[in-house]
Amino acid sequence: MIIMGLDPGTAITGYGIVKQQNNRHVVLGYGAIRTPSTESTSSRLVAIYGEVQNLIAEFRPDCLAVEELFFNKNVATALAVGQARGVAMLAGAHAGLPIAEYTPLQVKTAVTGYGRATKTQVAYMVTMLLGLSEAPKPDDVTDALAICVCHGYNANNWGRTE
Amino acid sequence: MIIMGLDPGTAITGYGIVKQQNNRHVVLGYGAIRTPSTESTSSRLVAIYGEVQNLIAEFRPDCLAVEELFFNKNVATALAVGQARGVAMLAGAHAGLPIAEYTPLQVKTAVTGYGRATKTQVAYMVTMLLGLSEAPKPDDVTDALAICVCHGYNANNWGRTE
Repeated sequence: MIIMGLDPGTAITGYGIVKQQNNRHVVLGYGAIRTPSTESTSSRLVAIYGEVQNLIAEFRPDCLAVEELFFNKNVATALAVGQARGVAMLAGAHAGLPIAEYTPLQVKTAVTGYGRATKTQVAYMVTMLLGLSEAPKPDDVTDALAICVCHGYNANNWGRTE
Repeated sequence: MIIMGLDPGTAITGYGIVKQQNNRHVVLGYGAIRTPSTESTSSRLVAIYGEVQNLIAEFRPDCLAVEELFFNKNVATALAVGQARGVAMLAGAHAGLPIAEYTPLQVKTAVTGYGRATKTQVAYMVTMLLGLSEAPKPDDVTDALAICVCHGYNANNWGRTE
């Protein structure tokens, strides 16, 4: 099963593509979709949608996993993240991918065994579990890979979550 | 010029289609796109995107206008509204429409002459200006029509706003 994990944002959308085989993870790709703040909101959303489409065409994932955000930033940030998240999920749905959503608690528990793990602990475990030499930057990329790992662990119980 | 105004939300997206000719407004259509809460988030976003596409195909608007939201609801609501807003704007951008964003202050000022007008005052003026027999329900539809009126008044200065 090839899992695409996304950590969406208007400026930076982190992505990770992980193949899961017999409880082993193989990283196929990761990176960040960046859109310049000089562009209009709609142009940035078109770019995010298009790049997610391109990644799906390139890596042919079997499913898309995204984090359900309950974060303590402000309402304007939540709106901007929501817009990016909406078009990213739409690209997955238009490609016929099933989409799983996980809470930060679920992601942290899957990756570190501890629901209140720090960002550093999550980055350390993602690096170890995926056999990377260091945690990818920016954090959004590591977070996207963490979501892949989380979905890998939870995929057997999936269907109950969507 | 035919203006499509949208007030996006995951459950209800209000829309209005208004033709502006020599400072007169002619309402071509209005209504609400509703998505059931029993559906997954991604299915609801696919439905909103698809319905906005259908409306664009039917009414051939020249532009899309949406409200910039700075509202005092909670972060979870802002995220949900952002997702709907993102896919609605994407449908407009994919159809090649220019997209204008207005603050609630701009919309209220354009419609009522007063930036702190109440919802009732906005609904009253929208009904009068557009020659409707009563304010369309739910409020999201009236708000979408108010955004059309706002864009009609501001379109000459447009280009500076996007």
